[in-house]
Amino acid sequence: MKRREFVKKIAAGSAVAGGLLSNAQPSLAAKRFNWKLVTTWPPNFPIFQDGVKRFANDVRRMSDNQLNIQVFAGGELIPALQTFEAVSQGTVEMGHGAAYYWAGKIPAAQFFTAVPFGMNAQGMNAWFYGGNGIELWQEVYAPHELVPFPMGNTGVQMGGWFRKKIDSLADLKGLKMRIPGLGGKVMAKAGVNPVLMAGGEIYTALERGTIDATEWVGPYHDLRLGLYRAAKYYYYPGWHEPGPALELIIHKKAWEELPKELQIIVQTAAEASNLQMLSEFEANNLDALHTLTNEHKVQIFEFPADVLRELHKLTLETLAEEADKDAEFKKVYAAYSSFSKNMDAWNAISEAAYARALKL
Amino acid sequence: MKRREFVKKIAAGSAVAGGLLSNAQPSLAAKRFNWKLVTTWPPNFPIFQDGVKRFANDVRRMSDNQLNIQVFAGGELIPALQTFEAVSQGTVEMGHGAAYYWAGKIPAAQFFTAVPFGMNAQGMNAWFYGGNGIELWQEVYAPHELVPFPMGNTGVQMGGWFRKKIDSLADLKGLKMRIPGLGGKVMAKAGVNPVLMAGGEIYTALERGTIDATEWVGPYHDLRLGLYRAAKYYYYPGWHEPGPALELIIHKKAWEELPKELQIIVQTAAEASNLQMLSEFEANNLDALHTLTNEHKVQIFEFPADVLRELHKLTLETLAEEADKDAEFKKVYAAYSSFSKNMDAWNAISEAAYARALKL
Repeated sequence: MKRREFVKKIAAGSAVAGGLLSNAQPSLAAKRFNWKLVTTWPPNFPIFQDGVKRFANDVRRMSDNQLNIQVFAGGELIPALQTFEAVSQGTVEMGHGAAYYWAGKIPAAQFFTAVPFGMNAQGMNAWFYGGNGIELWQEVYAPHELVPFPMGNTGVQMGGWFRKKIDSLADLKGLKMRIPGLGGKVMAKAGVNPVLMAGGEIYTALERGTIDATEWVGPYHDLRLGLYRAAKYYYYPGWHEPGPALELIIHKKAWEELPKELQIIVQTAAEASNLQMLSEFEANNLDALHTLTNEHKVQIFEFPADVLRELHKLTLETLAEEADKDAEFKKVYAAYSSFSKNMDAWNAISEAAYARALKL
Repeated sequence: MKRREFVKKIAAGSAVAGGLLSNAQPSLAAKRFNWKLVTTWPPNFPIFQDGVKRFANDVRRMSDNQLNIQVFAGGELIPALQTFEAVSQGTVEMGHGAAYYWAGKIPAAQFFTAVPFGMNAQGMNAWFYGGNGIELWQEVYAPHELVPFPMGNTGVQMGGWFRKKIDSLADLKGLKMRIPGLGGKVMAKAGVNPVLMAGGEIYTALERGTIDATEWVGPYHDLRLGLYRAAKYYYYPGWHEPGPALELIIHKKAWEELPKELQIIVQTAAEASNLQMLSEFEANNLDALHTLTNEHKVQIFEFPADVLRELHKLTLETLAEEADKDAEFKKVYAAYSSFSKNMDAWNAISEAAYARALKL
């Protein structure tokens, strides 16, 4: 039986069924999609990699096996930081990572991860789902044949791992530090030599002295990478990444070939993952922090006020300079700032006023 | 053709298809579910009611029409505050509302909406998805034949609408105020006469003087209810509801009859709705606040520090007294407190430290 005939026959059968079985609606032979998803994360990594695997599993089950996504960690199929290219070229259909990894190609992408002294996770999600964040993101990625969705957030990160105390901005000068995105550019202005590398490479680089300092995520994930074995001074707050969003990227052509129903499944699962990942970080960070301080004798410090003030100043300079260099960056910066200002004003009488009330 | 024979025939056909069309997998005649969902919200209400409708629509499409949920606003099929009973008894399969509406039946339910001076939205979600929040909630609802899931959050609410200035706790005395849950019990200790009524009834009650004051949600929703036409003093912060969660409740037997695939669709869609609703509130509150103050001449006040301090003290007394009266309340209170204390400690070096850094 040729395919066309078979499909016709099933279709006829199901038309009969519609009359006989009011409670049943057999689906017609549905196209099955076998997709690959590559991530920028280390293999078997909790929340990040595990969350992507849960996403893929949920999508498979929700779609009744119509959309099967095979998940590969960074390096398993494609080097971690080639995720963007692999999905952009259609080598694989999906990727998971962070938009600011691609700042070299698309400076404006950085706004969709985190802006130093910018919005926290709640603000980022408000921008994405209640504002024009996703729309702008999709516009920025369209020329690269990519459809992006937010999928995950770490919450406020830690400020990073150092081998010495940071008492002033001068103590940062000359450090080679793993710090991506706009945070890295701000640090460069402070005399740091910022380096971009995937999570899986950080520990070895720090341990061997290829880098002097690093930021990664927060206690739960930093403990897993074992960074405390190579540096003992752990700083907060993560001024450079106050609520970094993770991204799901999909090759545009593959996305457009998905039936609308499967698109809704993917989008809904990505939204659910977004909330799940953030919630898991928030729930697990404190215990990990205690393990770091109690078992591994890590010392926790707050960045001195002067350092934070200076970094804030350098951030505004950096943003202005980058906007001058790139029209798309300028456009997204304007949209981000306008939304962010409104969030600040609302926060002043909601989250901030409430936090104040708690301490009276 | 009898149903069984037809199913057999389709099954045989699809086995053949498996050989011929490696890319196709026709589903067998799947059972179709036609469910009803009643809410506690006014008809055509944005975010709350619209969000539930979007949820139902997404579930229908993701399930390829296998699970059709017909949504009714409060009063359309069942009075708003009889949602719990209707779903508990299986009159309808699903409900959407807030757990603290059922405090009269289940005192412990209140923890799954909001605790005065307790966790904000981020903390509640961390407890639900990263801690044991949902597990406890399902345990508490099980004797009522209900399976609950978080689905929505308003963020930090406003403190409420009054017809006069609140300069001291004495100004609250004797007021008849619409305020549900633990917030209402705390207010009772301050001499308020707390009243529970559904959103749709508030405006008329306030306008007619049946109540003297009310809280509802925040600027975006309060503007929609038109509360500014009946009271002009609008207070913040919402000490009584710092991140109230909304609930999806499902009749237990109906839930257990759903195939696992449809259960995952429902759960995932509820998680996505949770994030969507919160994000929409956060994105829309400020504009609504401006409309209230500029167009409707509403005056915005912060509760005086003394009042907040007193209410915090009364909150701790209320929680202790309620715990003495009800073993289940006591158990959930202990779990909530323990999680909440950890969140506070983590917030101190994450969200709070970051908020401080922003203001340096």
